[in-house]
Amino acid sequence: MKQNEKGHLITFFARQFERSKHDMDVTPFLDRESTIPLYKQLIDYFKNNMHDGALRKGMKLPSKRSLSNKLHISQTTVERCYEQLLAEGYIFSRPRSGMYVDYGAVSCLHYKGSQGVRSPKHPASTVIDFHYGHVNSEDFPLHSWKKSVSLSYDFHLDRLCKPSDEFGEHSLRSLIADYVYQARGVNTSADHVYVGSTTSYVLTLLCYVLDECQRVGFEDPGYPRSREIFTLLKKEVVPLRVDHTEGLLLGDIHSTKPDLIYVTPSHHYPLGSRMTLQKRVELLQSAEDVGAYIIEDDYDSEFHYTTEPLPSLHALAKRDNLIYMGTFSRSFLPSLRLSYMILPKSLLPRMQKLTLLYKQTVSSSQQLALADFMERREWTIHLNKMRTMYTKKKTVLLNELKHSFGDTIHIHGHLAGPRVLIDVLLDKGEKQLIEEADAAGVKVYPTSHAYLSDTPPATLQLGFSGLTIEDIQNGIQLLKEAWVR
Amino acid sequence: MKQNEKGHLITFFARQFERSKHDMDVTPFLDRESTIPLYKQLIDYFKNNMHDGALRKGMKLPSKRSLSNKLHISQTTVERCYEQLLAEGYIFSRPRSGMYVDYGAVSCLHYKGSQGVRSPKHPASTVIDFHYGHVNSEDFPLHSWKKSVSLSYDFHLDRLCKPSDEFGEHSLRSLIADYVYQARGVNTSADHVYVGSTTSYVLTLLCYVLDECQRVGFEDPGYPRSREIFTLLKKEVVPLRVDHTEGLLLGDIHSTKPDLIYVTPSHHYPLGSRMTLQKRVELLQSAEDVGAYIIEDDYDSEFHYTTEPLPSLHALAKRDNLIYMGTFSRSFLPSLRLSYMILPKSLLPRMQKLTLLYKQTVSSSQQLALADFMERREWTIHLNKMRTMYTKKKTVLLNELKHSFGDTIHIHGHLAGPRVLIDVLLDKGEKQLIEEADAAGVKVYPTSHAYLSDTPPATLQLGFSGLTIEDIQNGIQLLKEAWVR
Repeated sequence: MKQNEKGHLITFFARQFERSKHDMDVTPFLDRESTIPLYKQLIDYFKNNMHDGALRKGMKLPSKRSLSNKLHISQTTVERCYEQLLAEGYIFSRPRSGMYVDYGAVSCLHYKGSQGVRSPKHPASTVIDFHYGHVNSEDFPLHSWKKSVSLSYDFHLDRLCKPSDEFGEHSLRSLIADYVYQARGVNTSADHVYVGSTTSYVLTLLCYVLDECQRVGFEDPGYPRSREIFTLLKKEVVPLRVDHTEGLLLGDIHSTKPDLIYVTPSHHYPLGSRMTLQKRVELLQSAEDVGAYIIEDDYDSEFHYTTEPLPSLHALAKRDNLIYMGTFSRSFLPSLRLSYMILPKSLLPRMQKLTLLYKQTVSSSQQLALADFMERREWTIHLNKMRTMYTKKKTVLLNELKHSFGDTIHIHGHLAGPRVLIDVLLDKGEKQLIEEADAAGVKVYPTSHAYLSDTPPATLQLGFSGLTIEDIQNGIQLLKEAWVR
Repeated sequence: MKQNEKGHLITFFARQFERSKHDMDVTPFLDRESTIPLYKQLIDYFKNNMHDGALRKGMKLPSKRSLSNKLHISQTTVERCYEQLLAEGYIFSRPRSGMYVDYGAVSCLHYKGSQGVRSPKHPASTVIDFHYGHVNSEDFPLHSWKKSVSLSYDFHLDRLCKPSDEFGEHSLRSLIADYVYQARGVNTSADHVYVGSTTSYVLTLLCYVLDECQRVGFEDPGYPRSREIFTLLKKEVVPLRVDHTEGLLLGDIHSTKPDLIYVTPSHHYPLGSRMTLQKRVELLQSAEDVGAYIIEDDYDSEFHYTTEPLPSLHALAKRDNLIYMGTFSRSFLPSLRLSYMILPKSLLPRMQKLTLLYKQTVSSSQQLALADFMERREWTIHLNKMRTMYTKKKTVLLNELKHSFGDTIHIHGHLAGPRVLIDVLLDKGEKQLIEEADAAGVKVYPTSHAYLSDTPPATLQLGFSGLTIEDIQNGIQLLKEAWVR
């Protein structure tokens, strides 16, 4: 390159640099009718533009005076906004110069990953998803949860710089022990609580602990993921029939003599039914008769609509043969991946040995955040709010279903949990119904995969936890148009 | 209770309530010499007192004027502090009344869990822990990481309300693919990257995928946790000897004919040695000869002190038989619990099927935060900083060891990773040395558990990543006093 060309380039870059040093010309739209304070709207505007890459690192922000003049807002409002951005590290201040963007913004071209997020295959507006494992972001206590997350780093950083306790953070295990006692009558202590990522993982570790148990009595129908895990781990799965009217047929326990029994008494998967108190007592007796351990998967026990929940099997059990499982993924945030199990004393030494190998799998900051959230009673508040919300949504769903389909569907399984079951009596099979719904932009879910035998012809699951009331109404309308033509 | 008593009680509570409504009398100590701005000191004071329970929900904060008068600071300083606390949700404002504590503080009596944190069995000052899996909180980029964590909730809440992609968040997998290509020559794409909590867990899933592989060639000495997982999963472990001078003895592969080989070529566990380029090429050939898959556990590959790291086995491999593993727990934050593996194309369908059962185990918010952190180049900056820091700490450690022990120890394994090995020539066994160190308040770690045969008499591991330079100096001084008396 000639000296002259080089000189030109230097001048060019110097000019570019000079230009970038000029105040940015920003035009936020502020909603003066909104309940959100103006300074917060301004903060959101700057943050969004930094994240989108419109405002890039090193760019100079307008002076307080110029922005306040331009937007006809007070200088104090701009000052509040800048102070906050400064405190959060989005911008930095240069003495006698002004404020500059400090956020190394994500370049849209390079940020491959989030493109998927920004342009999903189906735009969200066209798909109404009756998935029973979603929650609605509007219902999530974002502000309070973020506070707990932030605190976990502010107050426990030293702890986070070391591997966790193998069973999980003691504070969280204590609070889980308190919670299951208050909510489910499970009388236990932190020492018995093991925290792990996902119920599938926790169940897998338990299978290693119960290595000698080879014959697993499993509800039919029952939760297919757990059943397949037993099969993967080379256990023999024997079906224990669950009848619509009778519930679990205990005779099957005596005839098949399993050494491990897996049940979902609070909210049967997929039927949604609840085991009676009488049946619970008899089940415990049957398990004792054949010398079997019981795994009580108490998922969704947080949500009951009609009466108080029945006590857990754990609360009724006398013997040291019951393992209780629960999860926060369904009741709180699906992507949290935090489940737990409560082990009898006799299994603790083996579990302790196993966790020397597997260590803890859940991030400590998430555990400590959840502990803080529970400690501040925010968890109880959230659960109460969700119960009210789900009751409302369920009522809307049932009304819409009855109104749209009348006698052509039979609704059941709606006493607990954020989903209902419908038997569709339209001379169409499960697969056809799901495909027709899908073509209309509605996702509904099968039940046939939960059966080892006697699959029902057309029973579908409709979860409502991820949807707004409007979504539910529109979804059922679309289903009607798709199925009844 | 008599009416009169009841009346008294009511009056008593009313008075208590009135009292609680009065301004709190707070006396923060402000350090005017500090580089930390006064308003930030004030923020810290209030946050700490709320967390400790000294300031409780509903208490009224002093007015701006009274606090500024009392502390001889400007009203603007107090205002900045209150604005920040308000924005973070610690306090709330009542019109025409003032600011009130909004943080439902953790009652010290009830908060069982964190008592453990506050009063550890050994006060930190008396134990110097040469654990090789710790990091030092002073080195952690707290501010920048918290920004990423916060963003993950601000920008992806809808995504967090649904279960993750089974293989992990696509953005993170893309960035991991970029990173391993740049840093380790691993040419791959997001589709091949699986994210899971802990290397043990990832290895377990891989064992299910490679169900037909029954004979595992394992370095002797080698990483005991992985070896024990193979044993737990009922694989046959055959030792492949690793020699101090020769490295891995490839003849053992040809004589034992494993169908799966597990190696740590970048930083051998526990020897700390590095496989030569020549040996890498020969190992790939040997594996091809016997038709074995290779698992390359590339832990600690981030930290090299002398020369550039050698290319990974994955970078040299031609065949579709190599599984590459890495982790962020060691190089970033031990409690994060985030590892990954890169699978060959031939294993993807089986892994996809398996993850329908096991789903994703790492919290999406942590994955998205890490993606943002990497995208903003903070990860690269952090790694560079840590390399400089570890080089410095290692130099201090080696100097202290030579100075204190001279010819009575032999140092090795210090070319990579945040630890060194010492052969102690003091006529004491490994166990005795560890116990004597422990009694002096210093934790050092064994190597014998890594051997299937020919255990060395007294070789110890000393990690330095969790310690300050001062800790390292004091620790070696204490070791000298404990061992050489």
